[in-house]
Amino acid sequence: MKSELLYGIHPVFEALVAGRRRIYEICLDKEKKSGRLAQIESMAEAGGVVIKYIGPGDFKALAGTVGHQGAAAVVSPYPPVTVRDVLQTVQGDEGKRFLLILDSIQDPQNLGAIVRTALCVGIQGVIVPRDRSASPTPAVSKASAGALEHIRLVQVTNLVQTIKYCKANGLWVMGLQKDAAQSIYAADLSGSIALVLGGEQKGMRPLVKKNCDFMVSIPQQGAIDSLNASVAAAVAMYEAFRQRNNERLTNGE
Amino acid sequence: MKSELLYGIHPVFEALVAGRRRIYEICLDKEKKSGRLAQIESMAEAGGVVIKYIGPGDFKALAGTVGHQGAAAVVSPYPPVTVRDVLQTVQGDEGKRFLLILDSIQDPQNLGAIVRTALCVGIQGVIVPRDRSASPTPAVSKASAGALEHIRLVQVTNLVQTIKYCKANGLWVMGLQKDAAQSIYAADLSGSIALVLGGEQKGMRPLVKKNCDFMVSIPQQGAIDSLNASVAAAVAMYEAFRQRNNERLTNGE
Repeated sequence: MKSELLYGIHPVFEALVAGRRRIYEICLDKEKKSGRLAQIESMAEAGGVVIKYIGPGDFKALAGTVGHQGAAAVVSPYPPVTVRDVLQTVQGDEGKRFLLILDSIQDPQNLGAIVRTALCVGIQGVIVPRDRSASPTPAVSKASAGALEHIRLVQVTNLVQTIKYCKANGLWVMGLQKDAAQSIYAADLSGSIALVLGGEQKGMRPLVKKNCDFMVSIPQQGAIDSLNASVAAAVAMYEAFRQRNNERLTNGE
Repeated sequence: MKSELLYGIHPVFEALVAGRRRIYEICLDKEKKSGRLAQIESMAEAGGVVIKYIGPGDFKALAGTVGHQGAAAVVSPYPPVTVRDVLQTVQGDEGKRFLLILDSIQDPQNLGAIVRTALCVGIQGVIVPRDRSASPTPAVSKASAGALEHIRLVQVTNLVQTIKYCKANGLWVMGLQKDAAQSIYAADLSGSIALVLGGEQKGMRPLVKKNCDFMVSIPQQGAIDSLNASVAAAVAMYEAFRQRNNERLTNGE
């Protein structure tokens, strides 16, 4: 039985809510009390999950970090999803697809922050390469405030093949790049699209870039032209979200 | 002579470019070489700044962190600016004001990330309370990739008085809050405005909120409704940026 240890209130809580992982055991700090911890406790009890109450010292040793907030869960590994699954089960949004491809985010904090925003704008799948990328670890779940437990994160072996597969399935693949002539505000992001973002240091690999349908940029002014990776991702995803929901949003909803 | 120690390639480089601080001494790791370090070296030489070359072990001791990247600078404290200064010297944008008020961001990483984005959208001043808030420290300059050296960050004693002062000077003060009925996409953010953001944990203080002209929200969908502070700030600032430059942006510039 393969398992991993989720830690932190949000990851444990959201794993219980999402119900996608098997939950073998919940560990709670016996000296901590809070509304959220009590919610976790009662959900675990309702689901018949074993609960262990342990002291703060042992808790830190178990979680391997002080960022556990008194909650941890022994769970099955992150559920595998394929791009095909994602494309076949697009819900709502009039069948329009909205994917995010990350080539290649290295920092678990950045991946977590991006996943968190992706969930808020209704991204249907986040695609990352299996190599040279942060993967869906407990640290990423923590950094995403548990959003990882709800989003569909897909690990693929060959990102270029995946991009070709997306194009063959009617998606427009748009790369985000600092110096692209067309800005996200001048581009049409309202259809079936996959946004592609490069990694923190090296950006997008040449072959990935070459396979995008076109490139778009986030306009910037001022002395320094660099947004951090999770901010750039958020600004691009939210502009797509705005365009996709324009009528509803400008009616004040 | 009051001084502080900036560390990291971007803060040191941008402090030299911005020219707002006195630079008493530049310290470079004698075993490191890079294009950016060489640029710092030649700018320091051109400006007649003393350069010290020290070993990596001593460097870590000096900077008190491993995140120094081989560059540090002994500099005068962050230059004080007042809200009055900011309002009197608004450049460009047809005289329209665009300020950001933060009540109260605690985490230097978040403040740095927000300042970095603020510079990219042309925010003319970032206002923070002197108490219960991260202040413009070297750690914030580092987290902002040096953007702090260019932006005008104002520390004020009484944020409510500052908001009243802004309103008296013709600015619309708009608070960002999760559950506000009007979304940023339905609001007019194109005039003279100050955006107000709450802190990471407690959000905006009641009296600050009460003094805003109106509240706006970032629409969200999905299982979890929470964006992190620096992402929420970025999405709101960029929507204002889009509205303020709409004609230029949609013409594809």
